[in-house]
Order: sequence, then structure tokens, then C-alpha cells
Amino acid sequence: MSNPRPHAERNPADRPLDHTHDAALAAWVEVAPASDFPLQNLPLGVFRRRGSADAGRIGAAIGADILDLSLCAEQGWLQGQVAAACRAPTLNALLGLGRVAWGSLRSQLHALLRATHPSHDPAAVRVALVPQRDADMLLPATVGDYTDFYASVYHATNVGRLFRPDNPLLPNYKYVPIGYHGRASSLVANASPVRRPQGQTKAPQDDAPTFGPSRSLDYELEMGAFVGSGNPLGQSIPLAEAEQHIFGLCLVNDWSARDIQSWEYQPLGPFLAKNFATTLGPWVVTLDALAPFRAAAFLRPEGDPAPLPYLWDADDQAHGGFDVTLEVLIASQRMRDADHAPFTLSRGNLQDLYWTLGQLLTHHASNGCNLQPGDLFASGTISGAEPGSRGCLLELTTRGAEPITLPTGEVRRFLADGDEVIFRAWCERPGFARIGWGECRGVVLPSAG
Amino acid sequence: MSNPRPHAERNPADRPLDHTHDAALAAWVEVAPASDFPLQNLPLGVFRRRGSADAGRIGAAIGADILDLSLCAEQGWLQGQVAAACRAPTLNALLGLGRVAWGSLRSQLHALLRATHPSHDPAAVRVALVPQRDADMLLPATVGDYTDFYASVYHATNVGRLFRPDNPLLPNYKYVPIGYHGRASSLVANASPVRRPQGQTKAPQDDAPTFGPSRSLDYELEMGAFVGSGNPLGQSIPLAEAEQHIFGLCLVNDWSARDIQSWEYQPLGPFLAKNFATTLGPWVVTLDALAPFRAAAFLRPEGDPAPLPYLWDADDQAHGGFDVTLEVLIASQRMRDADHAPFTLSRGNLQDLYWTLGQLLTHHASNGCNLQPGDLFASGTISGAEPGSRGCLLELTTRGAEPITLPTGEVRRFLADGDEVIFRAWCERPGFARIGWGECRGVVLPSAG
Repeated sequence: MSNPRPHAERNPADRPLDHTHDAALAAWVEVAPASDFPLQNLPLGVFRRRGSADAGRIGAAIGADILDLSLCAEQGWLQGQVAAACRAPTLNALLGLGRVAWGSLRSQLHALLRATHPSHDPAAVRVALVPQRDADMLLPATVGDYTDFYASVYHATNVGRLFRPDNPLLPNYKYVPIGYHGRASSLVANASPVRRPQGQTKAPQDDAPTFGPSRSLDYELEMGAFVGSGNPLGQSIPLAEAEQHIFGLCLVNDWSARDIQSWEYQPLGPFLAKNFATTLGPWVVTLDALAPFRAAAFLRPEGDPAPLPYLWDADDQAHGGFDVTLEVLIASQRMRDADHAPFTLSRGNLQDLYWTLGQLLTHHASNGCNLQPGDLFASGTISGAEPGSRGCLLELTTRGAEPITLPTGEVRRFLADGDEVIFRAWCERPGFARIGWGECRGVVLPSAG
Repeated sequence: MSNPRPHAERNPADRPLDHTHDAALAAWVEVAPASDFPLQNLPLGVFRRRGSADAGRIGAAIGADILDLSLCAEQGWLQGQVAAACRAPTLNALLGLGRVAWGSLRSQLHALLRATHPSHDPAAVRVALVPQRDADMLLPATVGDYTDFYASVYHATNVGRLFRPDNPLLPNYKYVPIGYHGRASSLVANASPVRRPQGQTKAPQDDAPTFGPSRSLDYELEMGAFVGSGNPLGQSIPLAEAEQHIFGLCLVNDWSARDIQSWEYQPLGPFLAKNFATTLGPWVVTLDALAPFRAAAFLRPEGDPAPLPYLWDADDQAHGGFDVTLEVLIASQRMRDADHAPFTLSRGNLQDLYWTLGQLLTHHASNGCNLQPGDLFASGTISGAEPGSRGCLLELTTRGAEPITLPTGEVRRFLADGDEVIFRAWCERPGFARIGWGECRGVVLPSAG
């Protein structure tokens, strides 16, 4: 499961780090050593206390708790523009404030929660803590438009080989950050059940398609970027400024029905094979929190073309990557009934994307397409060079030809009803606190048909 | 320019017609004989008096005027649920109310505006009239998701021949209503200027692509359907109920950069070639207004497969089509400067769609994808069998090989800066009042690059 491909070296002096990254500082809230959510992370999300009728409250994860930012703002513990934005039921207003405001919020949250010289009395602030186990996570933002890229060259090659054996990687791939529009209405909150879709499918030996439940339901391991401040229609975004428009990253499971996809996708791309559900993870980790984990952009093999000038920037090449480990686990109904631990299917790394997040965003706006606060663009399936780093079952089982055996003896070519799919992601680096995304989860329900 | 293909017969008894379709009734507002907007039409839109800072007001077109429904509601001239919905700055709330409410609004507007026995004193109601020439039209609704279909088999065949000479119509076409997700953020109001996009293009003889202004900017003549009441995620919509979810139709110009499209579109479909701008026409004509102009579904040629059962319904086959004439005109900057009338490029008919609106909607939701009030789905380019009915320049000029000469002697393979593209659409039938959509317009601005 390890990923031995040599990634580009991290550059220890790549971005200014500040006191919020100092691994020596601790929170006054208890944070377990293996937690994804130490003081150095402070990811944002939208939650509701289980059973309450709240529309949603913005929170920051700390240890096993959520700091209720709406309450903090109400109490006057947050200052400036961000205070009002934190009282909204989604992150959209905050996203629209831009990078300086996001930095101010991070600083203020750090000050509120640090054990030494906190900005306010922890005994008072403690009232704003909600145990994560008592909360449901909602969608972090109202997503105006959801775009899905195809940024892993390994995924594109593996999938291309299955759909077009003679022509796996198309000639445009290494020039164009390939992407398409996804469906915003069917983005669902973490832990939402996902109903197996019905659709048209046609086996090669059949004369005509039939309509029925998908028999090739799959997950796709992706990372999504939330757009912060946008751009006016007709104006592009230079790569040197691209990251100013990205707030942070969250896990994305872009559920896919492979049998529907292979029949419908030509010539206009995937449609019903994808738009029945896309699960967003619980927490958005900010680019500020990720600063210690930056890396160089993808190391293009000898012979690959250089990016066109609008997609090339020295700083982006040096620091545009992120060293994030990503993991996929599965727990079938029988496994859960028997208290089996989830079974690890793959482990990959965000550095395996052929394009940086900045390149994806700049390409997206290069024709003048207007991006707006709360828009989401996802990486596409994150697969690496090694078989153990393939980010979907289509690749892992070679379209079902090499099935996987679970600890219960159950065999999987694609997902079965009752299967729970779990994504995890984290960053580790000596001298820095480990930070993570929590778990993006979803259970497959039987088809309605 | 005529379209001699024999369309399926209209069925005079296809849908219950009521007094709102009675051609003998007139409005007390002046309506010119050739107007698109007699009492029998009453299309809805959102407008702003030119120069005002209004967020937008819902209006109904009548003759050369707009009846300000927000003011009518405020004055108590509208009753029931629709009154509050008409005071919103977009149609979304009204769309969510469903078919019975839409019928009630049509009835009330008819009563308000009819010359004989109007429901309120015309001398009072006249204050709610705004001349169309003094108003700017805005987007009719906040569109959550925009879907674009590919429903004209003639367009699909013509375009397929250009992009894939050996394989014009793919094997899925006659089974799957092919569609893809478009970009909602770049939907623009009628008469918005449209900036020529930049992007990657690669000529066949070039080794590598270059980045620059598109040299193959095109329009696409489409009709869009606004979704009214939606469906919960995971639940499909039977074809017999599909039209209950469709409020009405508006003209759509899905501007397309053909050179960007041909380089980027594989394998995930069009992206930057389309998402720089899509223009919506000024008025949404309701399905109620279109009742007299219903027709049978597309007459599938001998040998074509029958629709799969989920896409087949006897009533939909008998009455699911609409006899709407559509026209494309162009006026170059030089033509406008010389006061030349716009030049007609093509004339088509909505009956040339291979799928009915109901089939498109039912297919869209067949996997459980949730549709929401204000979602828009467009037909794709509407082309007919005859050369004069081709709905985009790509087809009309055979990708530039057969250029068109304008009255000024200017030659067009694709659009030039300064060109204005104008779509018109109308319905005519003996014994009924002619109704239409007004004009969907947009002028091409030079690239920003």
C-alpha cells in the first residue's frame, strides 16, 4: 500500500510559516496524539447538533470537538469582517471575503484555543464546544457550480486503457487540464446514504440497452477545492494569483456508475453516471494550514511538453503541490455486523496530480468563465503509479477482472448494497503537527427500482 | 428557408384548451397584429426599468409593454399563493409552486388584461405597465443547475460528421437522450454582450496547441425549459408526470468556440468551449400558452428503435411535441452602421427534436438526480433535415468550408467581433392567436487578450 514513487522534494522554505504552524503550541482543548485536528489545523465546516432544527452553524474542528464559530461571534470573541460571516449558515460569505480575512480568522481561532495566553478565558469559551459525535456535518457551502477535473495522469491512463485500449491517453491530456461540469444539486453532506442509481446499460454482446439498477457502482477518491473570491465574467485569473482565490480543500467521493458511464459518455462526457450523488467530506482544510506541507509541482517525465505559458509560473512549479496522503477503506454490511475494522483498499498522494490546484483554477477561468465564492472544483480520481494507489474500483479490479476479497471472504468487483466507503487524508512532516481531514463516509443503499 | 420535412400532424384535441386561448378575446392594452405578445401568450420574465437600481421585478409581456406583476401583487390585484411569489426578484418561488398555481396566475393575468369584463379597472391597472423599450431584461430565475441536451438528431449527425467523419451518429444516440452539465454562473441575461473567449487550440498540422482568442466562435440555436417543481434526490419522475415539472420555455444561445471544443472535448465533453457565456432570451412562454401548438413526438424513421419503456408514454408520443418555428438572424457591425436589416441565416422547428421535453426531463431524473425549481435544461442545437434549418454556423458553413456572404459583402465562416446574433421563435395556427418569444440577442465583443 505504500507509494514508493519518488515525489518531488518538499522545500522547507517554500512559504512563510507563522506561529499558527508552531508544533510546540497546544490547545487548551484535549487533542489526542493521533487526532486530525490539533491547534495547527483548524479546518472549517458546517454542522448541526444532532436532533436540532438549526439551518447549520459554522464550526472549526479541534480534537474531538467542534468550536461553534457562530456562538463565538455572537459572544464577541471574534473581531472584524469575519465575525458576521461566521454567523451565516454556510461558508459562502466567509469565502467571499478573501485571503486576508481567512488569515485573520485563523489567527483569531488560534488565539482563542491556545493553552498559553489565550485571547479569551477558556472557562468561558468552553461553552462553544460541541462534541463531534453529537453533531451532523452539512454541506460546507452552497455550491453554485461544481467542476470535476481529471488531473491524475495515472488515473487517466488506467481508465483510458479500459475504455479505449488502443488509445489510452488522448493527445490533449498533457496540454489541457481536462475537466467537465458536474451536478451541484446532488452534492450531499458527509455520511449521507447513497442510493444505487438506475440507468441504461448495454453489454457488448447485447443488441440493445436495458434499464435497471447499475451493476458497476464505484467510488472515486478526490480532493475538492473551494473557490473563495471569484472573478468577473470575461476576466481570466493569472496563475501567479490563482491561489488567492482558493480557500481550502475537502475530501470528495464522486460516486460513479461505470456501466451507465460507458454507454452514455460519448460524445459529451459523463452525465447520469455521476450526477446521482457526490459526497463532500466533513471538513475544509485551509491552504494556510497546508503551508508546511507544500511541495513542488508534478515532476513531468522527460519528453512531456512544458505547460503553455498561461499555465506556467516559477513559484507554482516550486511550491504548487501538496504532500497529502489519501486512503480508501471499505466496510461491508457483514463486516460491520461482525465488528471487522474497515479494510484498506488503496493509499495515494495528492502529489500525483499532473496539474497544480493553481493551474486547474487558472485554466478554468482562462476563457473568462466566472468563478464564484462557494464554487467547488475537484481533482478527479487521485491515482498514483503503483497498483496500491489506484483511487477507484474500476482501476483496482481492472473493471472487475481482478476482484478483491474482503476479510469476510466476500468478493468485490464493484460496490455492493450496504458497503460503506471511507476516505481519509492527512499530512505528516517531521517537526510539524500532523493534520488531517477526518473521514468522508457513505453507505450504499439498494436501488429504488 | 422553409422546412418542407413533413412534421407529424398536430392533434386539434390534444390538450384541453380554455378561455385563455380564445383568439376572439383581446386585451385592453394595445397589441399590434404581428406582436409576439397577445393576451393569449402572457410569458413571464424579470425586468428592471432602465436606470433603476431594482434587483429585478417579475413581469408579463403584453403587446409592447410589460405588466409589472410585483406592483399588481402589491396592489392586491393578484390573489392566492402566486401573489407573494410574484413579488420576488426572480421566478424561482413561482416555479416551485407547481402547475395548479401557474394556471391560476395565467387565469388571473388574463382576467386583469382582457378588454371585456376585466377583473379590475384598466384605468387603475395601467399604472403597472412599463414599455418594453424602457426596460432591461434580467435572468428569469436563479439557475441552480444548467443542463444541455443534444436532442436534434440532424444536429448530432451533421456535427458528428465533422468531428468523426467515419462515425457520425454514435450507437447510443437513438437510445439515450444525450446531455451534459453546463455552467450556471455564466448564463447571461438577454442582450448582454459576449466576449470572445481565449483558449487552447491546435490545428491538425501543428505539433502543439497555442493559447489565444478563438477563431471559430459560433452560436447555437436552442430552446430551454425551466424546471418548476422538483424531485427529491433518489426519486425518479415517470414520463406520464414529467410535464407537471416543466414551467415553460425560453430561447437559449449556447455560444460555442469550435476550435477550443475540438481540442478539449475528449474524453469528458465540452468545457471551456461553452462555459464563457450562454444567453437566455427575455421571456419564458408557459406550457399552458403552448397548448394549442402541441404536436406528436418525433416520427422515428423506419428501423429506429422504440424508446425504452421508461421513455415511452402514449400521451407523450401523441402530444409531447411543440410546433414552434425558430429563426436565426445576424447583423454585423457594418450592417448595423448602414441600417441594413438583420440577415436571416436559418429557420427551424422545435418538432425536429428526437426527444420530447418530457423524455428529456424523465431521463435526467431516471437515476435519482434531483431537479430543483429554476433549473434549466436546454434542447441542444435545433437543426432540421434541410440545409436552411441548421442551427449553428458550424453546420451552416460546414465548419467554414462553405462561407456565407452577408448583404454588405462581408463573408462569415464563424462570428466576427461586432456581430449581433438574433434568435426569434413563434407559434402560428389557423384559428389561434400567434404567440412568440421576442428576440434573444447578443453582440460579440473582441477578446480581452
